[in-house]
Amino acid sequence: MKITKDGITSPKGFLAAGEHIGIKKIKKDLAIIYSEKPALCSAVFTKNVVKAAPLKLAMKVLNETDYIQAIAINSGNANACTGEQGYLDAVDSSRLLAKCLNLKENEVLVSSTGVIGQLLNREKLFKGIEEVSKKLSKEEKSADDCANAIMTTDTFKKQITVEIEIEGIPVKISGIAKGSGMIHPNMATMLGFLTTDVNITKEMLDIAFKSNIDDSFNMITVDGETSTNDTCLILANGEADNPIIDKQDENFEKFKKGVEYVTKFLAKKIVEDGEGATKFLEVNLKGAYSKSDAKILCKAILNSQLVKTAFFGKDANWGRVLSAMGASGVIFNPDKTKISFSSNTGEIDLYENGAPYKFDEDYALKILEEREIKINVTLQEGKEEITGWGCDLSYEYVRINAEYRT
Amino acid sequence: MKITKDGITSPKGFLAAGEHIGIKKIKKDLAIIYSEKPALCSAVFTKNVVKAAPLKLAMKVLNETDYIQAIAINSGNANACTGEQGYLDAVDSSRLLAKCLNLKENEVLVSSTGVIGQLLNREKLFKGIEEVSKKLSKEEKSADDCANAIMTTDTFKKQITVEIEIEGIPVKISGIAKGSGMIHPNMATMLGFLTTDVNITKEMLDIAFKSNIDDSFNMITVDGETSTNDTCLILANGEADNPIIDKQDENFEKFKKGVEYVTKFLAKKIVEDGEGATKFLEVNLKGAYSKSDAKILCKAILNSQLVKTAFFGKDANWGRVLSAMGASGVIFNPDKTKISFSSNTGEIDLYENGAPYKFDEDYALKILEEREIKINVTLQEGKEEITGWGCDLSYEYVRINAEYRT
Repeated sequence: MKITKDGITSPKGFLAAGEHIGIKKIKKDLAIIYSEKPALCSAVFTKNVVKAAPLKLAMKVLNETDYIQAIAINSGNANACTGEQGYLDAVDSSRLLAKCLNLKENEVLVSSTGVIGQLLNREKLFKGIEEVSKKLSKEEKSADDCANAIMTTDTFKKQITVEIEIEGIPVKISGIAKGSGMIHPNMATMLGFLTTDVNITKEMLDIAFKSNIDDSFNMITVDGETSTNDTCLILANGEADNPIIDKQDENFEKFKKGVEYVTKFLAKKIVEDGEGATKFLEVNLKGAYSKSDAKILCKAILNSQLVKTAFFGKDANWGRVLSAMGASGVIFNPDKTKISFSSNTGEIDLYENGAPYKFDEDYALKILEEREIKINVTLQEGKEEITGWGCDLSYEYVRINAEYRT
Repeated sequence: MKITKDGITSPKGFLAAGEHIGIKKIKKDLAIIYSEKPALCSAVFTKNVVKAAPLKLAMKVLNETDYIQAIAINSGNANACTGEQGYLDAVDSSRLLAKCLNLKENEVLVSSTGVIGQLLNREKLFKGIEEVSKKLSKEEKSADDCANAIMTTDTFKKQITVEIEIEGIPVKISGIAKGSGMIHPNMATMLGFLTTDVNITKEMLDIAFKSNIDDSFNMITVDGETSTNDTCLILANGEADNPIIDKQDENFEKFKKGVEYVTKFLAKKIVEDGEGATKFLEVNLKGAYSKSDAKILCKAILNSQLVKTAFFGKDANWGRVLSAMGASGVIFNPDKTKISFSSNTGEIDLYENGAPYKFDEDYALKILEEREIKINVTLQEGKEEITGWGCDLSYEYVRINAEYRT
């Protein structure tokens, strides 16, 4: 597997563009992804009961067709909680996008991210769609522009390309994603778009893509908030011309691993760029009774305000980790639980057999001064394990979110 | 019902004391509450799977007896996650307290609050128990000292006394409590102690006390963290000599209302003094399908980091309220939901029938500049309603909890 920083125009037959059209003040705010040929689309959406207008429309479209050729994504306004007018805005911009690209209405999708509860500026959006759809290109700069244009409070673009070989034929999978607040995905992250030129059936694409989401995007959290706009999808246009993947064989596994690399990479990048984050936290939890228990415990740790602030303060306050687990609703024996913290500097045992270790606070501080920290928890309840990612809670998170709309 | 700021020595037959014994650097850190006669004790404890040593001991003692005459509470160290040695420390300090007050071992309780995962300093604690048990008095200053000595990051003491009449005989109910982080009680708040001279049976005391907890302490949240040490209990020594309350009659209702006043007052005071809080938030949620749905939705709003930071920023970001509700797991129709914010300055409608109201941002800001703000949510799912209390999330919360152990 070859890994590069190339963007989503890297697989054959994909074009992209990203520009500033005036929804946000200065930064790029409209992206378009385009496949020269109809591409199979597999998608997952938020489980939040409150779903943004473009998601409602996308779910309707994908109920009618398996093939999508273009997606327009605006940032700066989520078009969520916007009632009938919001839905109409999504439908109308979708129609316009289709028209500009000589496609049918059900061959395109629209997607939005940004502030909730405000109507889109139709004039700016429509003018933008017309302009940006003329700028589609295969160039790396266009892919970069596209990755930049979907960002909101993100501080850097998240994009990656992996190349695998199917029967000697090169196949590429690329992905872009955006965070970086309201991140506690439930079926998908805020926004993630993957392109691939693999030749595959819809059924196999669904399995490879959706089975990856649970262990990647669904295992990250920045602030425990599941967005109204979470969307993650993959477009597969078959242009690599590999022998079609139509069963779960070796070729399927290769492709699935490629997708997994992309989804986990993007998921971790979202957390790394979590709003105000100064620490990247990885929880490795072992010995849980069930996979479900493991996930609940892992997320309870990563979502705990007290755990997060402790890491911001470089404080080896393992008691907060145990307390967060204890309050999660999962039954486990705290007296048979082991906790250690580690980083590139080393590892320090903190708690085992119901009692704390005496530890060297100076050494602990050295470990916690690193940016990337692992929280290692071992239970004696069963054999299930899980890894999840999160970040600390800083002054900067509070500032960003206190001032978000103003 | 007469309401005063008097402390827990106000009911007949109760003494108290509070001193600095060296667990904390400067502030008072050991409190003792004493009843001259054996007092019926009703208690609730945290549902966190991880329970502190003094809670394990208290649960054992209260399994053996209904009567308690003294409680020693130390602040500064929670004696949680401290293994066998921690339990031994609780047992030994309990024995010493009994000895100092000429009581039996199962007539006293100990309670702890503070940092998790560190062993108590036995020497300081034992010397402290001996000294403070000599200072018990009925004086208001002693009651104040007691209320002060149970505090950790609290910025003011929480105490109240109500006086009711049972068949013409005055009965008093007093209470003290401490917050102010790790507050998301599940069966009780961090620490709350009530004293009353009412004459009542154990069964009626249990009903009156425990039925009040669900709508008071269990409806507040500061940071969504359920503590390992949550404890709330009431001592009833019968010294008022009222005709005994032994059934759910008019006298019982009077007493229950008195207890309710005390528990709700203390619960709200804890939130008002929430770590770093600049806003006191009250959620009034109506029209839920079930009481359980109402509670989950109410707490989802109050625990949302994005809702909390928005109020810190005085931002009428109602979309975050709806999104937090949507992510709670409760099924409801967002298109039939109404949201308004209000304060002493006025009320502003924000969202109804699936779409936002256009509102005057300046007027909204005026409303949100008040310290006490109401979030009013009306669903059309059923007839259940609930009120809950919380606070905003500020820089100060992050600072306090990043620096807690150091």
